Amino acid sequence: MVIVMAPDAPSDTIDSIVDLVASVGGEAYVTRGVSRTIIGLVGDVERFETLNLRALPGVADILRISTPYKLVSRENTTERSVVQVAGVPIGGDHMTLIAGPCAVETPEQTLEAALMAKRAGAALLRGGAYKPRTSPYAFQGLGETGLKILSDVRAETGLPIVTEVVDASDVELVASYADMLQIGTRNMQNFALLQAVGDAGKPVLLKRGMSSTIEEWLMAAEYIAQRGNLNIVLCERGIRTFEKATRNTLDVSAVAVAQRLSHLPVVVDPSHSGGKRELVLPLSRAAIAVGADGLIVDVHPAPETALCDGPQALTHADLAELAHVVTALPPLVGRTLTPSVAQVGAGV
Amino acid sequence: MVIVMAPDAPSDTIDSIVDLVASVGGEAYVTRGVSRTIIGLVGDVERFETLNLRALPGVADILRISTPYKLVSRENTTERSVVQVAGVPIGGDHMTLIAGPCAVETPEQTLEAALMAKRAGAALLRGGAYKPRTSPYAFQGLGETGLKILSDVRAETGLPIVTEVVDASDVELVASYADMLQIGTRNMQNFALLQAVGDAGKPVLLKRGMSSTIEEWLMAAEYIAQRGNLNIVLCERGIRTFEKATRNTLDVSAVAVAQRLSHLPVVVDPSHSGGKRELVLPLSRAAIAVGADGLIVDVHPAPETALCDGPQALTHADLAELAHVVTALPPLVGRTLTPSVAQVGAGV
Amino acid sequence: MVIVMAPDAPSDTIDSIVDLVASVGGEAYVTRGVSRTIIGLVGDVERFETLNLRALPGVADILRISTPYKLVSRENTTERSVVQVAGVPIGGDHMTLIAGPCAVETPEQTLEAALMAKRAGAALLRGGAYKPRTSPYAFQGLGETGLKILSDVRAETGLPIVTEVVDASDVELVASYADMLQIGTRNMQNFALLQAVGDAGKPVLLKRGMSSTIEEWLMAAEYIAQRGNLNIVLCERGIRTFEKATRNTLDVSAVAVAQRLSHLPVVVDPSHSGGKRELVLPLSRAAIAVGADGLIVDVHPAPETALCDGPQALTHADLAELAHVVTALPPLVGRTLTPSVAQVGAGV
Amino acid sequence: MVIVMAPDAPSDTIDSIVDLVASVGGEAYVTRGVSRTIIGLVGDVERFETLNLRALPGVADILRISTPYKLVSRENTTERSVVQVAGVPIGGDHMTLIAGPCAVETPEQTLEAALMAKRAGAALLRGGAYKPRTSPYAFQGLGETGLKILSDVRAETGLPIVTEVVDASDVELVASYADMLQIGTRNMQNFALLQAVGDAGKPVLLKRGMSSTIEEWLMAAEYIAQRGNLNIVLCERGIRTFEKATRNTLDVSAVAVAQRLSHLPVVVDPSHSGGKRELVLPLSRAAIAVGADGLIVDVHPAPETALCDGPQALTHADLAELAHVVTALPPLVGRTLTPSVAQVGAGV
Repeated sequence: MVIVMAPDAPSDTIDSIVDLVASVGGEAYVTRGVSRTIIGLVGDVERFETLNLRALPGVADILRISTPYKLVSRENTTERSVVQVAGVPIGGDHMTLIAGPCAVETPEQTLEAALMAKRAGAALLRGGAYKPRTSPYAFQGLGETGLKILSDVRAETGLPIVTEVVDASDVELVASYADMLQIGTRNMQNFALLQAVGDAGKPVLLKRGMSSTIEEWLMAAEYIAQRGNLNIVLCERGIRTFEKATRNTLDVSAVAVAQRLSHLPVVVDPSHSGGKRELVLPLSRAAIAVGADGLIVDVHPAPETALCDGPQALTHADLAELAHVVTALPPLVGRTLTPSVAQVGAGV
Repeated sequence: MVIVMAPDAPSDTIDSIVDLVASVGGEAYVTRGVSRTIIGLVGDVERFETLNLRALPGVADILRISTPYKLVSRENTTERSVVQVAGVPIGGDHMTLIAGPCAVETPEQTLEAALMAKRAGAALLRGGAYKPRTSPYAFQGLGETGLKILSDVRAETGLPIVTEVVDASDVELVASYADMLQIGTRNMQNFALLQAVGDAGKPVLLKRGMSSTIEEWLMAAEYIAQRGNLNIVLCERGIRTFEKATRNTLDVSAVAVAQRLSHLPVVVDPSHSGGKRELVLPLSRAAIAVGADGLIVDVHPAPETALCDGPQALTHADLAELAHVVTALPPLVGRTLTPSVAQVGAGV
Repeated sequence: MVIVMAPDAPSDTIDSIVDLVASVGGEAYVTRGVSRTIIGLVGDVERFETLNLRALPGVADILRISTPYKLVSRENTTERSVVQVAGVPIGGDHMTLIAGPCAVETPEQTLEAALMAKRAGAALLRGGAYKPRTSPYAFQGLGETGLKILSDVRAETGLPIVTEVVDASDVELVASYADMLQIGTRNMQNFALLQAVGDAGKPVLLKRGMSSTIEEWLMAAEYIAQRGNLNIVLCERGIRTFEKATRNTLDVSAVAVAQRLSHLPVVVDPSHSGGKRELVLPLSRAAIAVGADGLIVDVHPAPETALCDGPQALTHADLAELAHVVTALPPLVGRTLTPSVAQVGAGV
Repeated sequence: MVIVMAPDAPSDTIDSIVDLVASVGGEAYVTRGVSRTIIGLVGDVERFETLNLRALPGVADILRISTPYKLVSRENTTERSVVQVAGVPIGGDHMTLIAGPCAVETPEQTLEAALMAKRAGAALLRGGAYKPRTSPYAFQGLGETGLKILSDVRAETGLPIVTEVVDASDVELVASYADMLQIGTRNMQNFALLQAVGDAGKPVLLKRGMSSTIEEWLMAAEYIAQRGNLNIVLCERGIRTFEKATRNTLDVSAVAVAQRLSHLPVVVDPSHSGGKRELVLPLSRAAIAVGADGLIVDVHPAPETALCDGPQALTHADLAELAHVVTALPPLVGRTLTPSVAQVGAGV
């Protein structure tokens, strides 16, 4: 931690800061520059935070040098993690495809989308039973009925389920069906929900807030980790910018940056980033090429009847190209597509 | 609703859209331009939405003309609303000051801050017992202990309480103490929470999401209103921009725009916008001058010991100027400061 | 300047940095923390910059402590400046209104707009003869013909002229007509143009880039100042944000921040910020209340025929309210409206 | 063009709009909806623009349906263009690497960087003689001396030159040395400069403004095209977002979107996007994978002594991997690396 003093800070303030820092067991090193004095602090940053130094007169700025997250940081855990979702690995040398419908609508639509996902190379099935929607008048998901449909489709296809939970009080119920719990972009800083999924003991897919910094995203992951759950996969899904031609702007650099700062795997959602079907495949290629640990893609048997985000769902005609992308590109970045566990056992 | 067709859209697609629109009871008017054809739809927009027209081949864009919110819209309720909080009005010709500590820390600190608030002209007391914090290692609030302190301070000062609720399962408890429930910026799209406060029957202070559009903010209010609770006050608290010199950027135009689009009162939080004590008074003046229905300001008896947001809290030395600002400026925009109800009865 | 070393930086790198700093006459103080080592540098920052320390292995980050601008900084010139434009002061206890048409179209329209401006209390006339437009197909201004019209209108009304220059090679010509040269938002970092107006010896109105930070804005002013011209007035005109309901978002905090960091006067353009007539008066009130040194407002006798930005121009019906705002509000912030010099002499 | 009327617009206003549209040879089709009336216009949009309809009372909004750019639009020129730079193609099935130092510093440094560029697979040499810098105290480039160095290095290596021009009055001089003129991000809306390079008859590399929309970028290209120069290559170089971990955010979707909207080739600058050496290769992979027509990369023989942007320059150790990336990935998206023309002739 570095304290920058205002140009006119009196020297007794500086002395009192040195004393304050000593009072919590730290050491303060004063460097008097031409126009400014800076004070470098050595010791326990958490204890320095309690001193509220920023509010002292004469303090112009406080620069935090070390990262504010610990458990998810790569400084503490050098080796990158592999998260297991019902036997399907995400991370390491794998490139894992998660695919399925944005929303669970009917048993038939969900099964058909799951079979499409599998055909494209998916090892995990995505599908929403609880949908957070900007408008209260939009379709909000089937709730537990949707979870049961997902569960039936898992039985039939062998694909483990990734599904979103939107309220802390639903976590237990959703966790009783799901193999992986998804936290959506609007809930990235819903701290009660983060703590609840941290307690639930299931792997978590944590989407980046649509205007969050990478540091805030990692702090959100830290909330989950702090409850003893380190089975967290980060998901970049596009950030809000001025650009109107796309729904969001996929931040591919965030994948590389987050992988350097954290040991957690990072996957990309090309469907919600671009918001348009024709962008999904180019963005999928970019995501794999930049080094993502996986992709999560919307597919739908009949996008024109989808109750949610139809315009961005891939459909039958796109599957062959998706299958090609997820098999051909990963080897160029030292990865291989994670096969479906189901392919061995279930024989669908 | 206007459908814009792609330049190469075949005319049988246009015919089938006309038929689809008719199938849900609407009418479609086709205008063939030089480079594009557009189709104007007349009828029930909610039913048109179910047609998923955006996903049809040949459709380039769909422009929604009418506002997507109804209950909070000024198109439906022309006259601007006045929300009553335990007898204290917000809206109309009033300019209401809400003040208090960012977080409830001790009975003494809360009482002293409440007395400071009252001296500055506040009619309502703010104070957080549940604090959503970016870091899991930061002070998270006293919980119910904090609510009891607020309740005691209300008894002593006569100031009704505005306090934040962060989880749907806490709403009943918080509502049993509070006079007004606050939804924080990170929870603006926590839809389960919005519905829960909609059901609770207490007035709601709804902060704008830090990177939300005004339309998304009004849609969030619509979630509350849809549960039968129209006692909603909107709160502009600064939006995220590139500027690093301030914590957020206070969007004063949003006050004027929201007041034109919605009948709900709009107040401003100058403390969280700027994030620095020296900006609070200039921004308070700007907020009143632009026409805000109220201000919500952090005050603290000893900001250098505050457990939360000390650098932005006004302290004793600033109170006289705050009191001057909130009495002198409102008459210039046709308003008067809402007096404290307590001033009549409690005589503190 | 503070150098933050990477956690794994070898200690001989640290030694070599200490030597490098000494080689340019500086001193380096090393503070070894628990997880990181920091090095505080004392001496001439410009010389440190030539060392390219950021590119050295083991350097994680470099934090610049002092401000990168000098001549426009308030650290060096404590007292706030008053800029004189042909006898009309901007800054100090003054609140100066600049008004006129967005673009000069005809002699009649310009004269009528100037008379409107004067009636509203303007001491300076704005009007564009060179218009930078997003589309090459839009009206680009009358060029020198427009400058002659402005000059004639100045003779008739006595109002000094503020007009934009868009290309370095035009500066001499424009300066031969104008009393103050305006740099538009798109040219804030057109460094050749900044240097040319710095050389021209006329006061400069420097608009903030529409997505610039305050620091970049002050660095742009430094380019002008470095050529020996300190008669610079900063103009906040709204920044680009996600909000679609307004053309730009007026950043009122930037006024207060820029006035603390720089001694230059800061005026506000409420017309281009909001982009809508109904927002101009509320934003003008906010700007004066926050403490702006002036306003620059679009007025037009017939906005529905304006060749540029008609929707945001005030018209006859709005003048009385504008006149009221610019006289009634300034005293509340310790200022008075700058009278038109012409009112004494020309008697229009 | 579609006009949306306010809910309370009187019907004689609607009639007068119909008449106005007819007066310039257009047709207006009125659709009266439940809450709003819309008017679809058929005819010449440029003429409708002169009517200033947005300023009429009762008009709530005007939606432009057709694209505002013509010459660079893919609606008019369906086939994608190939731009030739002194015999080196950009576009079509090619993936062209442009590399070199950010700034020309010395003959030796420039030659060594050019040889590095060639070894990595570059067909064109980049290098700046005129550097637009945020600070007036930073290195501003060698000017014509730098152009001569570039010219000598071209003679020695056979690599054609891409170099930036920052002022309209320098265009003739720079064009007398350069094979391709670069417009930097800060000058994307320097319209005088755009027109000057449009007149110069050399191919142009047009960087996207750091907070421009894709539409504004294409409008800037239209300024150049309108002068008869269609040899324009668009360059995505990262946009400004909240994220602080990277210098800018590379917008890979912009590549795909711009290629759909315009026939011009689109290249990517991974060096200025990320601003960090370790991000250049991952972002280069992402750019090729998304389908970019080329890359422009900073290389420097000794980044730790670079006068400009050293931290992002690739150096000797990175060349083999860059060479691998630019040869191995393009075939996966149906492209091949453009060979250096010099490889045939010059034999360096």
